[in-house]
Amino acid sequence: MYTLNIITHRREEMIDVTREIQELVAQAHVHSGIVVVQSPHTTLGVTVNEHADPDVARDMLSHLAQLVPQSPTFHHQEGNADSHIKTSIVGPSVCLIIDQGRVQLGPWQGIFACEFDGPRRRTLWVQIIPRPS
Amino acid sequence: MYTLNIITHRREEMIDVTREIQELVAQAHVHSGIVVVQSPHTTLGVTVNEHADPDVARDMLSHLAQLVPQSPTFHHQEGNADSHIKTSIVGPSVCLIIDQGRVQLGPWQGIFACEFDGPRRRTLWVQIIPRPS
Amino acid sequence: MYTLNIITHRREEMIDVTREIQELVAQAHVHSGIVVVQSPHTTLGVTVNEHADPDVARDMLSHLAQLVPQSPTFHHQEGNADSHIKTSIVGPSVCLIIDQGRVQLGPWQGIFACEFDGPRRRTLWVQIIPRPS
Repeated sequence: MYTLNIITHRREEMIDVTREIQELVAQAHVHSGIVVVQSPHTTLGVTVNEHADPDVARDMLSHLAQLVPQSPTFHHQEGNADSHIKTSIVGPSVCLIIDQGRVQLGPWQGIFACEFDGPRRRTLWVQIIPRPS
Repeated sequence: MYTLNIITHRREEMIDVTREIQELVAQAHVHSGIVVVQSPHTTLGVTVNEHADPDVARDMLSHLAQLVPQSPTFHHQEGNADSHIKTSIVGPSVCLIIDQGRVQLGPWQGIFACEFDGPRRRTLWVQIIPRPS
Repeated sequence: MYTLNIITHRREEMIDVTREIQELVAQAHVHSGIVVVQSPHTTLGVTVNEHADPDVARDMLSHLAQLVPQSPTFHHQEGNADSHIKTSIVGPSVCLIIDQGRVQLGPWQGIFACEFDGPRRRTLWVQIIPRPS
């Protein structure tokens, strides 16, 4: 298992980790398999979406904040119930395909850590499973 | 493949299955790999979130019920269209990392079955894939 | 890695690909393992839900369109910010269990490509990982 350290700078932020994940996969010399990218945090999710235009991430964060606003009516007393809920909506991990030694991503796809309760020092865990030949 | 039986007691309920999944992984004697926890139901999802404070699960269920309320305007005639939609929002399965013989979870993370149309007898399926050494 | 070509006919559409995925798994002669179904697109998600009654998919699409409507207030200039957001809500891939040579699905479950910005020619990627015996 590999560990990736990231630093977030705002309460809500999409951090593009595509290059870092591709580097881990390249160093593992796995031709074909899968990679699991998992958040060990309960207020940081993981997703795949467009990373060419940063407005996509911006729209996603603002619309999720509209769907799940911070609110004093939540029972969880830390003021971040919205962050927990958004993490489960986006998901705590992604499972992606490795082929020809690389994470297979479409031309517009990037892998994002979704910070919903920053800024913080965060970690992603990465597991690479080769396909037995 | 392993099968985990659970009983739910309300229409909407988050069931913490962390201990059960950890036990299956411990019994499998897999040092490093991944575990897939899959719901075979279309109105029960699977997620990972905080299990220290039960108010997180409570807030999640009440907010999801607000985002996707039961409604007679749905076309699906069984009165549980909301349950189906919430299942796809949360997701039908999670894929998590095994390392050092355990499912790797952050200090606050637990694995939950998300009941959206209980109470019922339910099942989770668990597959453990070792990383070839 | 396998590639599945699909054609969508509407802006929003749930395409049932269960049979195609089962055929790929059958041809791979894998008794036990997992299968990852991944969308290489940023406006097409993948989920598992009921495929017996087509009204479930219909209700899901209409309710997601209500939660994330097309809107000129999004910053992303292509008019499909809603499609991107719905893709991350539903998820870009699913990881499912193979046992006894088949994708294990509950009696009501089917695998769906979720088109959120069609009609288009689309692709799904499929990776099959056997469990080492």
